[in-house]
Amino acid sequence: MHDPQAAARRLAVVASLADAVADADYVQESGPETVAAKRETFAALDAHARPATVLASSTSAIVASRFTETLAGRDRCIVAHPVNPPHLVPVVELCGAPWTSARTRSRTREVMLAIGQAPVDVKREVDGFVLNRLQAALLTEAFRLVRDGVVDPEDLDRTIADGLGLRWAFMGPFETIEMNAPGGIPDYCRRYVEWFRRYAAAPAPPSTWDDAAWQQVAAAWPHALDAAAIARKSLWRDERLAALLAHKNAQRKPDL
Amino acid sequence: MHDPQAAARRLAVVASLADAVADADYVQESGPETVAAKRETFAALDAHARPATVLASSTSAIVASRFTETLAGRDRCIVAHPVNPPHLVPVVELCGAPWTSARTRSRTREVMLAIGQAPVDVKREVDGFVLNRLQAALLTEAFRLVRDGVVDPEDLDRTIADGLGLRWAFMGPFETIEMNAPGGIPDYCRRYVEWFRRYAAAPAPPSTWDDAAWQQVAAAWPHALDAAAIARKSLWRDERLAALLAHKNAQRKPDL
Repeated sequence: MHDPQAAARRLAVVASLADAVADADYVQESGPETVAAKRETFAALDAHARPATVLASSTSAIVASRFTETLAGRDRCIVAHPVNPPHLVPVVELCGAPWTSARTRSRTREVMLAIGQAPVDVKREVDGFVLNRLQAALLTEAFRLVRDGVVDPEDLDRTIADGLGLRWAFMGPFETIEMNAPGGIPDYCRRYVEWFRRYAAAPAPPSTWDDAAWQQVAAAWPHALDAAAIARKSLWRDERLAALLAHKNAQRKPDL
Repeated sequence: MHDPQAAARRLAVVASLADAVADADYVQESGPETVAAKRETFAALDAHARPATVLASSTSAIVASRFTETLAGRDRCIVAHPVNPPHLVPVVELCGAPWTSARTRSRTREVMLAIGQAPVDVKREVDGFVLNRLQAALLTEAFRLVRDGVVDPEDLDRTIADGLGLRWAFMGPFETIEMNAPGGIPDYCRRYVEWFRRYAAAPAPPSTWDDAAWQQVAAAWPHALDAAAIARKSLWRDERLAALLAHKNAQRKPDL
């Protein structure tokens, strides 16, 4: 894992999909993000891979039932959605079609754990799986707040990076609220449920994503880096993520 | 700042509110979270503090216009909402009433910067300010996903703590999406706007917070710590936050 030369020696490049999967125990498909491309690729994978081989897709947006239904080996197909950059972000969302077998689910989970990833079981197919739904909820509110003139985008970012995001780097939203009331999650909900009801009664409307609305928010972002600066800053982000993971691994667990 | 004895020597305990504020340049009110208590306290503060003194409230939920309107010195009143634990979470939301003066806003900002906090300017009064609106958006989706059987609460937490929360510990949601498309925020929005429109068209309904619904979600949380364990774990959380801040301060800035 920490020896790049040894890792490189484990890679092989072949000229056909059939050769690539002939001896594979596990296939991670990361092709173009369209239903047509997934259908074509999975038909070929199902034809060429050995029967016990798991066929997993990296798709972030297309549920497995849309491209595996007609395959003889549809029970061995699953979505295993990683997050960019996958070598630095551990979470992988596992989401089967209704016909995905229990063996396929457990085998995919084992592979992910073996390579140090953090698999999450998405128990039924939903648009955006879990991660992108949580991000969409927060981003839609963020875009509304900036569009409505409540806050500038840099200050909104500060609210996360110097606020909510600190706890969320090492505990999720449920564990966070458990620490935020003396009696844990039920106590927290009882204290704040009226506020959450008011919030949920007036969610950010779909017009938040009208072209004029999001363009106004995008124009309020004062940096507007060019592609070269974004590429350089992405390398810095990856360095920061690597340092954060090393930091996290060095921390002690709670005594309960 | 790193000398607890010296810090303790700067504290003084007095027997009356009038004595407490007589020589103060800045007052941070952190009393009971009701409109009646804030009204009573701010009337007393306005009567006893010197005219140039800023009167700030720690309230997380009550906008300043609800408890300062009738005061002679209402222009010097403002909300400065810190986040628990405030010595470890830098963000402070500053939100004035319509009559809060520009001087009050800028003076409060200066005080917060001087003590190492990260002030955020909430430009008009909204329920929940910014931080609690962003948290409510994410939590409402989280509670819906667990209630609907899409994911278990521990796996949902993993999606944040081993996923989205890693980037959000050092960059906000806007900077995050700027890094997620080669052309920055406009490019990101163009690529994913159809997904965000689908998401915003079917937000988590207010029934997510019906008593039976949130109780079902709370019951699915497998830990249910008692009050003593929560108190112990909160100390661990604070230790982790302190370590995370030290880690962040040691990281380099991006070269752009």
